[in-house]
Amino acid sequence: MQLDLIRRLSIPGDTKVVLCVMDGLGGLPGPRARTELEEARTDNLDRLAEQGVLGQTLPVGYGITPGSGPGHMALFGYDPLSFDIGRGVLEATGIDFALGPNDLAARGNLCTVDADGRITDRRAGRVATAVTAQIAERLSAIALPGVELFVRPVREHRFVLVLRGEGLSSALTETDPQKEGVPTLPCTATAQDGEATARRVNDFIAHARALLSDRETANAVTLRGWAKRPTLPQMPELWKLRAAAVTVYPMYRGLARLVGMDALPGGDDIQSEFATVRAHWDDYDFFFVHFKGTDSAGEDGDFRRKSAAIAEFDAALSDLLTLRPNVLVVTGDHSTPATMAAHSWHPVPLVLWGDHVRTDESHVFSEVECSRGGLGTFPACEVLPIAFAHAGRLAKYGA
Amino acid sequence: MQLDLIRRLSIPGDTKVVLCVMDGLGGLPGPRARTELEEARTDNLDRLAEQGVLGQTLPVGYGITPGSGPGHMALFGYDPLSFDIGRGVLEATGIDFALGPNDLAARGNLCTVDADGRITDRRAGRVATAVTAQIAERLSAIALPGVELFVRPVREHRFVLVLRGEGLSSALTETDPQKEGVPTLPCTATAQDGEATARRVNDFIAHARALLSDRETANAVTLRGWAKRPTLPQMPELWKLRAAAVTVYPMYRGLARLVGMDALPGGDDIQSEFATVRAHWDDYDFFFVHFKGTDSAGEDGDFRRKSAAIAEFDAALSDLLTLRPNVLVVTGDHSTPATMAAHSWHPVPLVLWGDHVRTDESHVFSEVECSRGGLGTFPACEVLPIAFAHAGRLAKYGA
Repeated sequence: MQLDLIRRLSIPGDTKVVLCVMDGLGGLPGPRARTELEEARTDNLDRLAEQGVLGQTLPVGYGITPGSGPGHMALFGYDPLSFDIGRGVLEATGIDFALGPNDLAARGNLCTVDADGRITDRRAGRVATAVTAQIAERLSAIALPGVELFVRPVREHRFVLVLRGEGLSSALTETDPQKEGVPTLPCTATAQDGEATARRVNDFIAHARALLSDRETANAVTLRGWAKRPTLPQMPELWKLRAAAVTVYPMYRGLARLVGMDALPGGDDIQSEFATVRAHWDDYDFFFVHFKGTDSAGEDGDFRRKSAAIAEFDAALSDLLTLRPNVLVVTGDHSTPATMAAHSWHPVPLVLWGDHVRTDESHVFSEVECSRGGLGTFPACEVLPIAFAHAGRLAKYGA
Repeated sequence: MQLDLIRRLSIPGDTKVVLCVMDGLGGLPGPRARTELEEARTDNLDRLAEQGVLGQTLPVGYGITPGSGPGHMALFGYDPLSFDIGRGVLEATGIDFALGPNDLAARGNLCTVDADGRITDRRAGRVATAVTAQIAERLSAIALPGVELFVRPVREHRFVLVLRGEGLSSALTETDPQKEGVPTLPCTATAQDGEATARRVNDFIAHARALLSDRETANAVTLRGWAKRPTLPQMPELWKLRAAAVTVYPMYRGLARLVGMDALPGGDDIQSEFATVRAHWDDYDFFFVHFKGTDSAGEDGDFRRKSAAIAEFDAALSDLLTLRPNVLVVTGDHSTPATMAAHSWHPVPLVLWGDHVRTDESHVFSEVECSRGGLGTFPACEVLPIAFAHAGRLAKYGA
């Protein structure tokens, strides 16, 4: 739905909508010709499927494999082809770094290089977050003329670099060669207005290399996902509600904040996340709950662990259901089949449960049942309009 | 998918994709309440359905009956409402006539008229191609002031007329009245800039009538499908691959050439077409194979012959399958139900088979199974994005 139509039709109310995103939910048939979801024990999800209605979503479009950013933007109601969020912004927002209008953010990785400057480990052995924090503090001392500079640890080898200054441009290349045995790449401008910024970035990289030359590992940096903060229509204004995000991982919290959700502490697991929802049940109309376990296992190519993560989510769902949300949607931001060990373009299973649902004849939550579910195959950016319609939060269009 | 997004996400590779188009594949229930496809023996296609995933495509849109041009443009990935190819251009390209920017092409038919100029046979008894070639040579001698002129035989009664000159316009009416017992129609301009061209065309028609007045049959012409050469993004550049077309009929070859495919000799039947694919297997990443038999039979209202054509294609498919393409798509460019003896708007059955396919529970390739297949109902211009995604030829969108 177009955002201006949402703004026009949305109405306040006291109904509650919960969107649970099982990251990378969709799968492919594995060893026993069943998908991860089919293999998992999912009593709660199957009951939702029986009482609710199924469908499958296209996060970005046919054949397009979404990154996490576009996948979530779509679920939040924003066409990801129109609203492109850079990785640097996602990472910065995810660690509570308040980006200003003159800030340029990048996702950084610590890597290990040999005496000749060739990368021997792109992730520096996934160095401990505490070590990355110490290194980030050292790198923060680098002085660049005319630019303020922030280096903040994220998790393991990952950090965020923010340059603050007038006229900084995101028209820059990435410095990670995406392979080992070669040096890191210089940063170059992809448009004329990026040239001055590229020089600053290369200065930073050289200073960092010099500062870290006493280290055997985690002694260099790569930088990518150059981006400035986008201006996005905010969910509370669009939908006339209070929205909260409950996530364990920072990036998803960051994305939710960009569209105007409050970020609540997620704890360490899905049980804690649902406990957070319970604790704040009266404070919000809409909860986005992010579950990472499915995607991590899928990316690792671990079919059984992904299946177990689905079952873990399903068991935890009992707690959420006692809150009796008016509308509950469970879906994913994209597929991550364990057999591919990567994100994929396959449509994503979805179940919608709650008030005014027109049930279909499905009794099981699975890819194949969702592909013939009552909601059909539809763009993921229509998930929220459908959910809020069921919650009585969209007025009639036309007389 | 938007073409600029394809250009951005497509990646080279060594995978092979084959798109088989059974022209006019979709049907309607016939005498025994089964469609042509359900009636045919299709062991290979049914196995593909079992191992692959089904869906149904909309070539142009809901309720729209496509001509061959739009039907194929969609399958090649171009929204046929944005990229309109005139029939004259198709015919000219199909006989290897290299159209220049100042060329105006029309599809011509030889017809037979009586002494009063009334059409007695719109196709001149489907006169032999060799006779049409002689007639075309005579017509090529016609001189029009300020315009160069080419008349080239196609097949049977069909020919191509190309006018070459400054300022020629395609804003012209067709001269075929589409029925017999009436004279051919004069060509008139549909916009002001077509008036001078219409006069040239009517001069040509009058000269042709005079030149052929010694003949009892095939003694007049009708002209339609006025068109100039469009500028189309080319498949090799869009998709970073080498693409080949294997067809028996010239028009489909012509269309494939317009989007940058190499036209390979198709021979006379589907067995020869697959032999051509085999002979060039190492030279291309993508093969478009066109099968005409289904449409010809459908247009003739011959239910049994259409069913037999499907079975013939199915049997020939064994040869192609031994090449083990990474991705194989079998579909049609539109429906041509034998009960209607015409193209129709009904969605078109599709099976996708190969790497990374998420199977549905279908075991049979039929209209009804395709309508509830795992891919759902989707625009035909998304067929190639989906196929190339499965072949690993589309990178992730966003971080």
